[in-house]
Order: sequence, then C-alpha cells, then structure tokens
Amino acid sequence: MSNPSGKYYLDTHRLQLLGDGIFAIVMTLLVLEIHVPEAASTSELVGAIMALWPNFFSYFLSFVLLGAFWIGHRLQFHYITRSNRMLLWINIFFYLFISLIPFSAAFLGRHYDQQVAVVFYGVNLILAATVLYANWMYAVSRNLAREVPSEIRREAEKYMLFAPAVYLLAILLSFWSTTASVIIYLVTPVLYILPSRLDQLLSQEK
Amino acid sequence: MSNPSGKYYLDTHRLQLLGDGIFAIVMTLLVLEIHVPEAASTSELVGAIMALWPNFFSYFLSFVLLGAFWIGHRLQFHYITRSNRMLLWINIFFYLFISLIPFSAAFLGRHYDQQVAVVFYGVNLILAATVLYANWMYAVSRNLAREVPSEIRREAEKYMLFAPAVYLLAILLSFWSTTASVIIYLVTPVLYILPSRLDQLLSQEK
Amino acid sequence: MSNPSGKYYLDTHRLQLLGDGIFAIVMTLLVLEIHVPEAASTSELVGAIMALWPNFFSYFLSFVLLGAFWIGHRLQFHYITRSNRMLLWINIFFYLFISLIPFSAAFLGRHYDQQVAVVFYGVNLILAATVLYANWMYAVSRNLAREVPSEIRREAEKYMLFAPAVYLLAILLSFWSTTASVIIYLVTPVLYILPSRLDQLLSQEK
Amino acid sequence: MSNPSGKYYLDTHRLQLLGDGIFAIVMTLLVLEIHVPEAASTSELVGAIMALWPNFFSYFLSFVLLGAFWIGHRLQFHYITRSNRMLLWINIFFYLFISLIPFSAAFLGRHYDQQVAVVFYGVNLILAATVLYANWMYAVSRNLAREVPSEIRREAEKYMLFAPAVYLLAILLSFWSTTASVIIYLVTPVLYILPSRLDQLLSQEK
Repeated sequence: MSNPSGKYYLDTHRLQLLGDGIFAIVMTLLVLEIHVPEAASTSELVGAIMALWPNFFSYFLSFVLLGAFWIGHRLQFHYITRSNRMLLWINIFFYLFISLIPFSAAFLGRHYDQQVAVVFYGVNLILAATVLYANWMYAVSRNLAREVPSEIRREAEKYMLFAPAVYLLAILLSFWSTTASVIIYLVTPVLYILPSRLDQLLSQEK
Repeated sequence: MSNPSGKYYLDTHRLQLLGDGIFAIVMTLLVLEIHVPEAASTSELVGAIMALWPNFFSYFLSFVLLGAFWIGHRLQFHYITRSNRMLLWINIFFYLFISLIPFSAAFLGRHYDQQVAVVFYGVNLILAATVLYANWMYAVSRNLAREVPSEIRREAEKYMLFAPAVYLLAILLSFWSTTASVIIYLVTPVLYILPSRLDQLLSQEK
Repeated sequence: MSNPSGKYYLDTHRLQLLGDGIFAIVMTLLVLEIHVPEAASTSELVGAIMALWPNFFSYFLSFVLLGAFWIGHRLQFHYITRSNRMLLWINIFFYLFISLIPFSAAFLGRHYDQQVAVVFYGVNLILAATVLYANWMYAVSRNLAREVPSEIRREAEKYMLFAPAVYLLAILLSFWSTTASVIIYLVTPVLYILPSRLDQLLSQEK
Repeated sequence: MSNPSGKYYLDTHRLQLLGDGIFAIVMTLLVLEIHVPEAASTSELVGAIMALWPNFFSYFLSFVLLGAFWIGHRLQFHYITRSNRMLLWINIFFYLFISLIPFSAAFLGRHYDQQVAVVFYGVNLILAATVLYANWMYAVSRNLAREVPSEIRREAEKYMLFAPAVYLLAILLSFWSTTASVIIYLVTPVLYILPSRLDQLLSQEK
C-alpha cells in the first residue's frame, strides 16, 4: 500500500466492495415487492398481471435511480484513489441514505398523492446526492484523488448538483401539486442515462 | 488505470462486482420460496416432503438458468477489459432483467398452464439474453474488448443467440400448447452445461 | 490474463466472488429465523429468551458448518489458480447445495426426531462435500491448480472425505437412532475448527 | 502468493470479501424493519410517519454501530496482510456476532426497559469487540501483520478496548437503571466518528 506524501492513506478497495454489496442488495430486494397474482380464470389472470403495471414501472424507475447513483459513485472512484477514516464515514452515510431508498420509494408508491410522502422521498434523494457531493469535495480538497482536469471537474460538479437541485424544486412544487413533483421524480433519473457534455469531455481525456 | 488510445475508459472491476453481488442474491433468494412442511405423522411428513418435488425441481432449474447467464456474462468479460458510461448502463439493464427472473419463475411455477405466464417468462429471458448480446456487440464495436479470434467470435455469437431464438419459438408454440413451451424452457438452460464447439475452439486459443 | 500451455483458462476471481457473496448471504439469513419474543412480565421475558436456546444453538452450529465449507473452498483456491467452463459449473452446483443448507437445517430443526429430516440433512451435506471434492479432483487432474506437495495432497483429500464419510455413517445410524445421527451432525463441523495434521504440513510448506 | 519466512500463509482477500458481503447484508436488512404506514387522512399519515421516529433513530444508530465495527475491521486489515486457518476461524466468529446484531438491536428496541434485553445487547457487542481484538492480537503475535509503529499499536489497542469496557460498564449500570445503559449504548458508537489521537498518529505515519 503506497503512502504518498507521508500522509495516512488507505486504498479504497474495501470501501467500494461494501458499496457494491449494498447496491446489489438494495437493487435486488426491489423485486420482492412484486407478488405473483392469484386468479380463477385466464381473463382474470391477464387483468391481474396488467394491474401490476405500477409495480413494474416503479421497479424499473428505482433500478434506474439506483443505477444513476451507483454510476456517480463509481465515476468518483475513477479519480479517488486513497481514503482515510473521514472518507470511510462519509461513504457509510451515503450507503445509509441509499439503503433507505426502498422504504422511501415504497412510501411514495403507497401515498403518491400525499405531500408528506412526496417530501420524504425528495429529502431522502437530496440527502444521498448531497453526501455523494460531499464525498467528492472532501476527497479532492484532501488530496485523496488523482488530478482531475479543471473543465471535467467543473462539468462533473454541475452534473452532481443538477439532480438535488431539481429534487428541491420538486419538493417546493409539492405545495402546489404533488402530481407535478412525482413527474419530476420520474423524469430526473432517466435524464442520467442520456449522453452528456461530461461524457464528451471524458472521452477526450488524454 | 490505463487509458489506451486516449479515450476515456473505466476498468470493469466494479461492474463485475455489482453483477456478482446481484447474481449471488438472486440465486440465494430462490431457496426462501421452499418452506419446511408441517405434519402430524411420519408418513404424512414423507408425503409432504415428496410433494415439494416441483419446488426442488424449480430451484434446481432456476439455479442452472442463472448459472448459464452468469457464465455467459463472465465469459464476455474475459474479453471485455474496459468500460464507459454506456456499457455501465447496458449492464445495469441486464441486471434489472436478471433480478426479475425470480418473479417470472414464481409466476410460471404458479400458473404454468396459463399462456400469459408462459409468455411473461419467455419475454423476461429473451430481454435478459438480448441485453447481454447487446453488451457484447457494443463492447466489441467500441473497442472496449481485447481482440477476439474471428472463429471464436462467430461461434460465441451463435451461442448467445441460440437461447433467445429458442425462447421465441417457445412463446410462439404457447399458442398451440403451453406444455410444449414449458418443456423447452426446462431443457434449454441444461443444454448450456454440455461441452460445445465453443469450448473446443477456446481450448485451442493460443 | 496468462494462458499457460496454450490452453483456454479463465482466472478464478469472479468464481470466488460469486461464492463469497453466496456464503455471506446464506450465513446472514440464518439470523432471520430467530424472532424477538413478546412477553407480559420480566420473568416471562427471561423465560422466553431462555426458550430460544435451540435457535441460538442452531445458529451457532450452522455458522460453524458453513464456515467449515467456506474454509475448505477457500483453501482449495489457494492452489486452484485457473478455471474453465466445466470448473465454473462444478462450483455453481457446489453453491446450489450450499444455498440449500438453510432449508435442510430448518427442516432438521423442526423435525429432528423424524428419519426423513435426518436423512435429508445428511444427503444435502454429503452432496455439497462431494461436489467440493470433485472440484478439487477435476482442478488437479486438468492442470488448473499449481503444484501441490504430494503429502499435503494426500492429507487434504483425507480431510475432504472425512466429513461426508461421517455423514454417511450418520444416515445409516438413523435407522437405529435419529438422536445418534443428530449428535454426529452437531459434532462433525466443530472438529474442523481444531488444528490438524494438515495445518502442520501446510505450515512447513516452503 | 508470497510465502514469507517459509510459513504457510494465505492472503486475506477472500476473508475481507466475505466480511464486506456480510456487513453489506446486515446493514441493508435493517431497513426492512421499517414498514410503510397506512392512514385514512393526511393528518393521520403525518402522525404515523412521525411515530416512526424511534425506528429511524434505531436505523441510524445501528448503521453507525456497524459502520464503526466495519471501519475497525478494515483498519486492522490495513496492517494484517497474511492469514492462516486459525485467523479465518477467528474472523468467522467475528462475523457470527456481527450477524447477530440485528436480532439484539430489535430485542433491545422492543424491550428497552427490561434488563434482560439490555444485558443481551451489551453482551453481543462485547463479544463482537472482543473477537475483533483477539483477531488483532493473534495476527500481530503470529507475524501475520506487517510492522506497526509501537505508538500507533498502543493507541489502536486502547481504541479497540474502549468500547467493550464502556459496554461492560453499561451492563453493570443496568442493575441500577436500564435507561442509563441505553444512553451509553447510544452515545458510544457515535464517539467513533469523532477524530481521535489515533487519526493524528496515523496521519503522521511515514
């Protein structure tokens, strides 16, 4: 284990392992929420499986949402190569909010027309995104990351702040319409699948 | 982390880790579906455990099915050595369909004589196999894989397309007989255990 | 990835990863079987937690049993450094029988005085141990392992065959007394914690 | 795999993998204890989610507690670079007590005013901490760790013994007041987040 500049640095291997284990479990548990329907006739069974569409839709969206967080975390550790005890704790808190997402999603799914559920979901996502952003800022400021080209850094930080800013907007909107908030929640993670200016910059990285 | 030809490439380590975590959980959860029987007498208990044979059979087959997908994924990453954001997303969608298999299998197990369950199961497997195939084609076309001898590539692609083609056939057959479809579903993953021409070619790889 | 002697060999990294994920889940799920007792008074609560001793005992024993299998698998891969498709399948079948252990243990725990449960448990363990032994013999015979000193190999193979032989004996004994079988099941995994002649030989390995 | 001084040593990779898998699962399972509330009106729903605060508080504390154990384990393996069969078993027993924490925490959560629950929780934590300490002492004494500066070792050992000593005190206090014990349980893991003299020493490590 190298120890650059005489400071106490751990590698980030086990931290990433723990995180991948947590993401794998959280993603996989989502399907346990979908139950096989019972039915007396064929047409009733077709109806019953059709009636499960919100569950499949929610499964799909939660997978994409968690996928977007996982990719963000993974991209950060493309640059973050060292860790210390504080970075370990920051990540444990990130994992804490990630593990809470299945509850928040189920809460929103059950009470999507209630502001308390809409706010709870948004606050959970904002906390997860904020801790992930803090992870990045801390690692860069404490020399735990290798050098990041400044244009990439600027774009990456915009990228990281976009989602929590939009979720904050969704929370504010919920005072006017919870439906509007839910639509924003649904669209935002999907935007993270689209190619972005960040990918362009990264692909030019020497 | 090497960056060949000046393009932005990530290693594939964490992507594989996430996948192994997901496969491990999905495989392990299967056994939770089998419940310890209660019984008042010895002969009743023997009867009750015998009556569980479809559950053990289904456990065995699902393990083999997931094993075949896992081996396919693992063999692809024998050649795929780099990744980018698009490849991460392709794999997340592959994991999404893998995580859905326990539901599809339970649905088929409960309603094996209903066409809707037979079609649902087949569509799930075809989607997983298709995304896995897309993963391979994308990686090869975007220079994310090291060189694959052309004969191996041809054989591997046949191998990857065999299962979804057979599953498509099974779906079509379900309009005539759902029993025929179910038999095809049962036999196909087992075929992937047998030694194949691909193994022969691979064993000659210099 | 090196390819010694021109044969097609995969590394064993992901195979071990999948296995560690499966062992981690199987071990952890065991505790879900122990439920927090309800009670109206202090003395009732003390009684209720005392009455859980068979559950704690079974948790302890299952952890030790799975620990012994995990260590056996881990020690094999100290020598096995390459894999091929057949070795992947052998290991998937090993994981299949490992994942079944929570069911077999719960079945035995619920019906420890019934021969069918005693035999089922024994057969599960024998199958797991036999596939693990097959893994070793296959790897050594197909040049997938680095060289093993012949004395260590002899001792290790005795070590691997000891448990399934004893479990076979326990199954036979169950025709006479299921209690005797259960006692053998309980004692055998604990024997694998004790230092052995194998450890002595290994500690002298140059 | 290097084999220093002619002794039989395994690397610690899979041991850490197994542990990270177990920690990931134990941490993630905690959220399954929190259930989405049902409610007939908005004010009732707000009340119901507010009434869940002890569950969120307990989720937070258990995550921090497990985080502190995980970091302790991870820091030990910063120095422990080799393993043998005995070290594998010590760690399996550590994982055994870690996996038991969700039960102990639920038991305490349900019966926090009963001494038997307070003692059970404390004993679980003391056993986990003691086995972790034994892991360290064994590794250092058997030359399984690389050299640790003596001042760091002294400080680290104080650090490792602090929590179990405090938990022992909490158990003794429970004869006088279970509330006092619970407060100590709550405060202790949080102390492990604060920067310590150990961090200072480590940051000066050359």
